[in-house]
Amino acid sequence: MNSAPFARPSGRDPSALRQIQFEPGFSKHAEGSCLVSFGDTRVLCTASIEDKVPPFLRGTNRGWVTAEYGMLPRSTHSRMDREASRGKQSGRTHEIQRLIGRSLRMATDLGYLGERQIKIDCDVIQADGGTRTAAISGAWVALYLAGQGLVESGVLKSHPVVTSLAAISCGIWHGVPLLDLDYLEDSDCDADANFVITQSGDLIEVQLTAEKQAIGQETMMSLLALARAGVATIIGEQFKACGIAGLALPVRANPS
Amino acid sequence: MNSAPFARPSGRDPSALRQIQFEPGFSKHAEGSCLVSFGDTRVLCTASIEDKVPPFLRGTNRGWVTAEYGMLPRSTHSRMDREASRGKQSGRTHEIQRLIGRSLRMATDLGYLGERQIKIDCDVIQADGGTRTAAISGAWVALYLAGQGLVESGVLKSHPVVTSLAAISCGIWHGVPLLDLDYLEDSDCDADANFVITQSGDLIEVQLTAEKQAIGQETMMSLLALARAGVATIIGEQFKACGIAGLALPVRANPS
Amino acid sequence: MNSAPFARPSGRDPSALRQIQFEPGFSKHAEGSCLVSFGDTRVLCTASIEDKVPPFLRGTNRGWVTAEYGMLPRSTHSRMDREASRGKQSGRTHEIQRLIGRSLRMATDLGYLGERQIKIDCDVIQADGGTRTAAISGAWVALYLAGQGLVESGVLKSHPVVTSLAAISCGIWHGVPLLDLDYLEDSDCDADANFVITQSGDLIEVQLTAEKQAIGQETMMSLLALARAGVATIIGEQFKACGIAGLALPVRANPS
Amino acid sequence: MNSAPFARPSGRDPSALRQIQFEPGFSKHAEGSCLVSFGDTRVLCTASIEDKVPPFLRGTNRGWVTAEYGMLPRSTHSRMDREASRGKQSGRTHEIQRLIGRSLRMATDLGYLGERQIKIDCDVIQADGGTRTAAISGAWVALYLAGQGLVESGVLKSHPVVTSLAAISCGIWHGVPLLDLDYLEDSDCDADANFVITQSGDLIEVQLTAEKQAIGQETMMSLLALARAGVATIIGEQFKACGIAGLALPVRANPS
Amino acid sequence: MNSAPFARPSGRDPSALRQIQFEPGFSKHAEGSCLVSFGDTRVLCTASIEDKVPPFLRGTNRGWVTAEYGMLPRSTHSRMDREASRGKQSGRTHEIQRLIGRSLRMATDLGYLGERQIKIDCDVIQADGGTRTAAISGAWVALYLAGQGLVESGVLKSHPVVTSLAAISCGIWHGVPLLDLDYLEDSDCDADANFVITQSGDLIEVQLTAEKQAIGQETMMSLLALARAGVATIIGEQFKACGIAGLALPVRANPS
Amino acid sequence: MNSAPFARPSGRDPSALRQIQFEPGFSKHAEGSCLVSFGDTRVLCTASIEDKVPPFLRGTNRGWVTAEYGMLPRSTHSRMDREASRGKQSGRTHEIQRLIGRSLRMATDLGYLGERQIKIDCDVIQADGGTRTAAISGAWVALYLAGQGLVESGVLKSHPVVTSLAAISCGIWHGVPLLDLDYLEDSDCDADANFVITQSGDLIEVQLTAEKQAIGQETMMSLLALARAGVATIIGEQFKACGIAGLALPVRANPS
Repeated sequence: MNSAPFARPSGRDPSALRQIQFEPGFSKHAEGSCLVSFGDTRVLCTASIEDKVPPFLRGTNRGWVTAEYGMLPRSTHSRMDREASRGKQSGRTHEIQRLIGRSLRMATDLGYLGERQIKIDCDVIQADGGTRTAAISGAWVALYLAGQGLVESGVLKSHPVVTSLAAISCGIWHGVPLLDLDYLEDSDCDADANFVITQSGDLIEVQLTAEKQAIGQETMMSLLALARAGVATIIGEQFKACGIAGLALPVRANPS
Repeated sequence: MNSAPFARPSGRDPSALRQIQFEPGFSKHAEGSCLVSFGDTRVLCTASIEDKVPPFLRGTNRGWVTAEYGMLPRSTHSRMDREASRGKQSGRTHEIQRLIGRSLRMATDLGYLGERQIKIDCDVIQADGGTRTAAISGAWVALYLAGQGLVESGVLKSHPVVTSLAAISCGIWHGVPLLDLDYLEDSDCDADANFVITQSGDLIEVQLTAEKQAIGQETMMSLLALARAGVATIIGEQFKACGIAGLALPVRANPS
Repeated sequence: MNSAPFARPSGRDPSALRQIQFEPGFSKHAEGSCLVSFGDTRVLCTASIEDKVPPFLRGTNRGWVTAEYGMLPRSTHSRMDREASRGKQSGRTHEIQRLIGRSLRMATDLGYLGERQIKIDCDVIQADGGTRTAAISGAWVALYLAGQGLVESGVLKSHPVVTSLAAISCGIWHGVPLLDLDYLEDSDCDADANFVITQSGDLIEVQLTAEKQAIGQETMMSLLALARAGVATIIGEQFKACGIAGLALPVRANPS
Repeated sequence: MNSAPFARPSGRDPSALRQIQFEPGFSKHAEGSCLVSFGDTRVLCTASIEDKVPPFLRGTNRGWVTAEYGMLPRSTHSRMDREASRGKQSGRTHEIQRLIGRSLRMATDLGYLGERQIKIDCDVIQADGGTRTAAISGAWVALYLAGQGLVESGVLKSHPVVTSLAAISCGIWHGVPLLDLDYLEDSDCDADANFVITQSGDLIEVQLTAEKQAIGQETMMSLLALARAGVATIIGEQFKACGIAGLALPVRANPS
Repeated sequence: MNSAPFARPSGRDPSALRQIQFEPGFSKHAEGSCLVSFGDTRVLCTASIEDKVPPFLRGTNRGWVTAEYGMLPRSTHSRMDREASRGKQSGRTHEIQRLIGRSLRMATDLGYLGERQIKIDCDVIQADGGTRTAAISGAWVALYLAGQGLVESGVLKSHPVVTSLAAISCGIWHGVPLLDLDYLEDSDCDADANFVITQSGDLIEVQLTAEKQAIGQETMMSLLALARAGVATIIGEQFKACGIAGLALPVRANPS
Repeated sequence: MNSAPFARPSGRDPSALRQIQFEPGFSKHAEGSCLVSFGDTRVLCTASIEDKVPPFLRGTNRGWVTAEYGMLPRSTHSRMDREASRGKQSGRTHEIQRLIGRSLRMATDLGYLGERQIKIDCDVIQADGGTRTAAISGAWVALYLAGQGLVESGVLKSHPVVTSLAAISCGIWHGVPLLDLDYLEDSDCDADANFVITQSGDLIEVQLTAEKQAIGQETMMSLLALARAGVATIIGEQFKACGIAGLALPVRANPS
């Protein structure tokens, strides 16, 4: 690169998020729902509560949170085949929905939830990079709202969601660490990483992948620093969308 | 029924449509798109233009229009299994997407379109009855806008969409013919019917099904009359969404 | 068309059925069976009684009638892929078997049937147009014979099949309404329609599709008139095949 | 067993075939076809000629013969699931269709056939034991008739079917070797075997399976003797159905 | 062939087996296991005991033995597609695993086994001809060792495996009967046959297939003689691997 | 935990690897192969060279490396269903094989490889924790040996594998960072992480997952330090298995 001032394709500052927006209650039928936008990436997240748990949990008095992910065929620049029509989900879909499910289970007191399953559906309406991190962040809102309903209807006394978390992507683009890559940046980066981080800055999931070259420990540290700052902002937006007043989830009276 | 004044569950007049709305250009990537709402039923329709036709049309210089249909798992009152996850599409899905495709091919001059395929995706974001008729009506808008793009970019001289059409459901509910059933009405009707009708009132598709009892010819005629009136209104809304100024599609100079 | 006298490809009069034939008891194992021929179209219909109903009916004391449809790979002019080998049924197959099942449920007193399921299999041995309407007509015979067995063996006191019905196709061919299209006529028609009609002339199912051009209400009425006349004849043949003596199904003593 | 005179369930003599019947030309569309009956077992066999060979033969100037097998769902005593609906063929189906294909390839001069494929479909209309051997025997007739068509239409000068063969089952039932087991006998035998044998008595395929106990070499020899006699009779019937005048296939002028 | 002394590709004597080796206990987790080598053909066989039987055996107090077979994608000369990735098992796989299961059920006293299922997995690590016969022979060892565990842990008093058996392939190669074909020999033979034979020389399964020409009864007899001799040797090796001291399975006190 | 001296279940020191072993050339047919053992975890890795690349690379003169992963059904403590039999691969399988493929592509000069594809198969023979990291480490050896063959046969002048890398798992167990978890440790850890690291200590892939609680940045750093040390040792073993003499891959003359 020459000495021209650095400019990322989106024109954003390296540490700037896109416009982040959560629209809670987007779906009329779901127990919890949210349309999340990270810039032009839009994902509809719904949470459905079922009274049946997977076989391995029957009789244990414990609950479960699981997730499914999909992209509408024309959410992307060129149309993708519909997975329902091809008859199977891609490896990428499997990978992402497993990630979403693991992350949200870490946010939930599954023992307190009781023998219930919350199924999260994350459907990408429009894709412009970062769909999996937008999905996790939106899914947390849908999950929280569904849990809120369990409390408001008297099924549970305390809220089963006990940890606040959000997810964001980072990447190295032309040697510079950037926060929240859009599609153009993502398709031309040296390495990218997805972080799921709690409000206290601890790590739930890290998925780092070198795309063009291996990266050193220092570089990884700067990605992590960007991600932590981004997550703090996103959690603020989640709280607003959920109507959580304070700076943190309310302390629970010991529910168990 | 007793002599109390008749009231359909939705409170609407028997011949009243729900609030009909078309939001053109909802999707950033698709060549044509539209979010259509018939009351609480919302369907995202996109049109994708491809330069490849199905094998049976290769070398014929003719085009094709086809459609796929899907429902988000929690578009419905209780969550449905995701078809991509089950690995196959239901019979109902097959039936509906075939209906959409047939209808839109009748709206299009496939010979003039040339060796191109337009794929319509209709994805139900929220379901409250009448998803297939909303989908056809919205898909016409997405198709028209995609065709408009072919004209504006100079690929075609005239518009390949040559017939205006829309679809609506009707039904017999407690003996009374009703227009545009919502979910509550639909799940308790004696018979229902879906009509695809042109602006001139002619029939493209009729699908009539007795649910509780067979119906006579007269009754069918009253359903058809309701449908024709409804379609006229819907076509007006489609024209507004597409920016079509007059009362009918412009007359084409003979394109072939 | 010029002024030459009109002649449909089959040489039949516009309102003439093909040779209609029902061979009851064609299958040794099934509780009810029938090989139905509409001209060269031949469909083997069997009815199998099972003591198990689908999950949504368990414990309701109600029965169910469902149908599956298939074509032998070389029932057609050129060989089709075997659906069992491709691993999925086509959209057309789904559409047809749903139609058959819906129609036959309307013929049956499902509450009186009790917690039993009757599965109808319609397998096309040879296809020459109109397989779905032949299948419905033949399936009614198989269903009736299976129900007869329940009465004769003392399981039920009255016959669970309470409505007589048959199905027939019509179409507009070179502007002329024709009854009972064969393959040649069907593949070159302007519009076609399938009707399922009761003995009293009421409508159970209508599936009308414009193939080349939309049709007006008058035209639809003439198709319906043809269909009603055809169905009356077919029901006469069904009664002969089932050994039903009178002109209508016997009046039931109130079975519930 | 006691000293009561031996009687097999079918009442036949141990070395007696069931009524064997071939109805050539049963199907209007196929290049060759035959409805074969071995007693109550009825199999519809069709041969379809295609100008395309499997990938591994392209450009080799050699042809191929392959087979598919299926059972109608209610061909059996109790209804089986439809394979097309389950989405996969059973292991038994795979095993049988491979056997049919291998056997018929041995009857055919594949080099002389040229780059053509003959697909055999064997669909069991009614099952009462011995469906695979009936299928092979009937498939030979369908194949021969299809080959005859190639000669009559001048595509080939000599007949591509160069070996006459048929198949039959045998079994040990209560210690006694029986020819041509029906369902009752087959489901209660000690061991059974299927033989595909040429007119000269040589072996194409042997599939012997001990069901209740292992069998000695002598016993196997008596089964083989029964089978050879049975095959001779069946080949006679095949010749009649195909209109082959002499006692053997005509000697070919060296076709290659 | 000229008068040069006959030499099979492997250089072995026509009646010579390859190096046969059984490594019992190859797998740490399975109840019984064995890595079997017939020359360069290597198959890992494991036996897994489950307390659940297939539906048709529930409540009968009888057990079941079943088998699955697979080939590692690069066990063969050129890489094969992975069946798990293609989403279905080939016809050949189905055929082989059914053969293995049937054979081993004949070795087992299923009534004495009780309501347990033993699942045999045969996975080909390296293929050089004769994988199915190596698999059956190795599976017998895995099955025997699993049964031994049931006795040693006191679950059963007597051993549920009551018949010793092994399998071997033979073939006609350039007119000469050969024992234990390797890949080179197998791919160029006139006919081949697989035999499953008991220690007493009786037949459990015979699968004979003419590849290039039909074979006479005499020839079949010479193949059978080769096979019997080979099986006797293999059973000796199986006994060594299982630590069976005598020349035959110990006589059981009447276990039922 | 009390003050008793810390002991991990395996008895190893926290920073101790299990016994690591690479057996190159394990498979007779593959272009490169290796049986890798990390303690009781054993994975067979093969590399198959094909002259065909995926469609998106045709005509680009670039190559590709991809991977498939599978577990033998009884490689695990209790038997798993066979994926080929279930008809689909699990999400976990998809996730792992994508990880292996991405990692090995980073080791390879795909432009220099030319229009060739190297398919890596990793099949778990026995599982005791860490199968994916053992698979990546073994796959590198198989890949390297396959590349060596391309050089030795003169197809390529320089070696296409240009980066040495290996993979290892770490985890937090009862608060203590441990290297190379076995199954017992893995199933009871607070968090685990898989690292793919180059010889120079840079990161190719990081997959960190909190299982019981989120972890801080410091903790992540200690896991990374353990992993880097482990990888250095493993790369030493890989070099020995591949016969690489020096401490690093030889410097390439500029191959492009």
